[in-house]
Amino acid sequence: MEIIKSLLEGNKRACARAISLIENEEEGYLSLLKDIYKYTQNAYIIGITGPPGAGKSTLTNQLVKALRKEDKKVGIIAIDPTSPFTKGAILGDRIRMSDIMLDKNVFIRSMGTRGHLGGLSKATQGAIKVLDAFGCDYIIVETVGVGQSEVDIVKSADTTVMTMVPGLGDDIQAIKAGVMEIADVFVINKSDKDGAKKTYLEIQMALDFKKDWDFRPPVSMAVASENKGIDELLENIKKHRKYLEESKNLYNKRLERNKIEINEIVYRQIQRKIRYIQETDHIEDLIKKTMTKEIDPYTISEQIIQKIVKEM
Amino acid sequence: MEIIKSLLEGNKRACARAISLIENEEEGYLSLLKDIYKYTQNAYIIGITGPPGAGKSTLTNQLVKALRKEDKKVGIIAIDPTSPFTKGAILGDRIRMSDIMLDKNVFIRSMGTRGHLGGLSKATQGAIKVLDAFGCDYIIVETVGVGQSEVDIVKSADTTVMTMVPGLGDDIQAIKAGVMEIADVFVINKSDKDGAKKTYLEIQMALDFKKDWDFRPPVSMAVASENKGIDELLENIKKHRKYLEESKNLYNKRLERNKIEINEIVYRQIQRKIRYIQETDHIEDLIKKTMTKEIDPYTISEQIIQKIVKEM
Repeated sequence: MEIIKSLLEGNKRACARAISLIENEEEGYLSLLKDIYKYTQNAYIIGITGPPGAGKSTLTNQLVKALRKEDKKVGIIAIDPTSPFTKGAILGDRIRMSDIMLDKNVFIRSMGTRGHLGGLSKATQGAIKVLDAFGCDYIIVETVGVGQSEVDIVKSADTTVMTMVPGLGDDIQAIKAGVMEIADVFVINKSDKDGAKKTYLEIQMALDFKKDWDFRPPVSMAVASENKGIDELLENIKKHRKYLEESKNLYNKRLERNKIEINEIVYRQIQRKIRYIQETDHIEDLIKKTMTKEIDPYTISEQIIQKIVKEM
Repeated sequence: MEIIKSLLEGNKRACARAISLIENEEEGYLSLLKDIYKYTQNAYIIGITGPPGAGKSTLTNQLVKALRKEDKKVGIIAIDPTSPFTKGAILGDRIRMSDIMLDKNVFIRSMGTRGHLGGLSKATQGAIKVLDAFGCDYIIVETVGVGQSEVDIVKSADTTVMTMVPGLGDDIQAIKAGVMEIADVFVINKSDKDGAKKTYLEIQMALDFKKDWDFRPPVSMAVASENKGIDELLENIKKHRKYLEESKNLYNKRLERNKIEINEIVYRQIQRKIRYIQETDHIEDLIKKTMTKEIDPYTISEQIIQKIVKEM
């Protein structure tokens, strides 16, 4: 495909087009994914998550600049709907971001959170593959760490950075349960604010609960808006990467990711077929007949399954 | 089937056995459902939901007694894991419930909340069908109104009773969003406690937000442990039933329920097949080959789909 050639040559428009193709599940998107697969698995994937207002986008922006100084090619996938990378951005933010936006070795893509979230996760996986084939050394996936689906997306990162801010109080309690497990690296942004030290200690205390860390998540401070603490954060990400590469864990993480992706594709495909059958085969009329007991729901279920089998 | 004959004759053991068959998806459970379908749609289904500690079980117990006075046959499906109807019950509660437990015209069944929640919803639908064929005039489904899956289960009731208690404060705020829509009838239990009047006004205010009610949910007070306010609650349930029957809404609600049930059966069946294929067809080994790029995840997805088609 022409688009693949352009993508591999580093053409940004081809890259954008390829991601849209996958996101909208247009004709040929699956063969595109098949064909680019052999060019993937070179990029390192960083997930940036944390509560709204933690400054994830500013942090991402500074991380990208730091990576550019090392001459790395970087892709950004912003799933956070409040991210200035996305359409809802206020002008000031976009201007601040403009230097990385114009860089030909930085590709920024925002993904809509509307619609089916299973679809979002699948589209994000696809976009990661495209950016990987595009030649990115790093891909940063920025997402609000609230919903389960977003946690799922973050899970697909090699290193997940949990962004905290001082003074959230109860929120730390709230994230303790589920989120502590997915964070590989912590950063306390806006650490010039009151309570940064307290937040630091709270995170450390929460981490103390688990004794047998193979890799205990490092916690660092940052003021992203002043470009402070970015080097230390990047250092921590690299430490985690080194740990993953030296253990078998990077392999396992990526294998697990492929498994999840396969499952999602299978389900989405079948889901789509069911919807199609229901719309075209007068299933609606058939279901109405259950109300007069002319037919029962279980026989209809079997008929739908048989149709799926026949038509797939 | 022998079991169906016994079930229709009102044999409690046959009833229990039939529900287990469906819950565990044992051999023949689908044909059982098919065969009993023509004996269903006579029962009226009441959903009882609300936060933990609202006294839903005590309320259910009293409602059952009131219905027994009208010589109605009643089935109870308790999904609430803290319900005294379930195994985790403390002895005192069980004793209080014992008079209805020994009644041959009352059938009580608790459903496990463990495992796949989609499966729970499907099993509950099945249990409702069995109790319906068993000859119940009323089936009460008791569930904690917290998770989405439990909301789904409650949706399958004809009338949903939202049980509130005084002094929950913020919880009312929390339920405003999603739960206000599914409640057909409100009852403030433990209304001898402080703040009952305030809770009453808060519910009314929340209801005031919607102007164009076809049936504005009535709100009543109760002290279930003293058998106070039960008649009024039952009256309100009957008012709602009358409204549903006189409009086309009972038909629509039940039609929608059948649609959801059909979808769930189809998905569960396919899900099971996918799991089976993954366990038996060395898919695990195949997925490992994605790591060396010998094969890509998309080709594997297609192979799984083809296998589903072939083997179903």
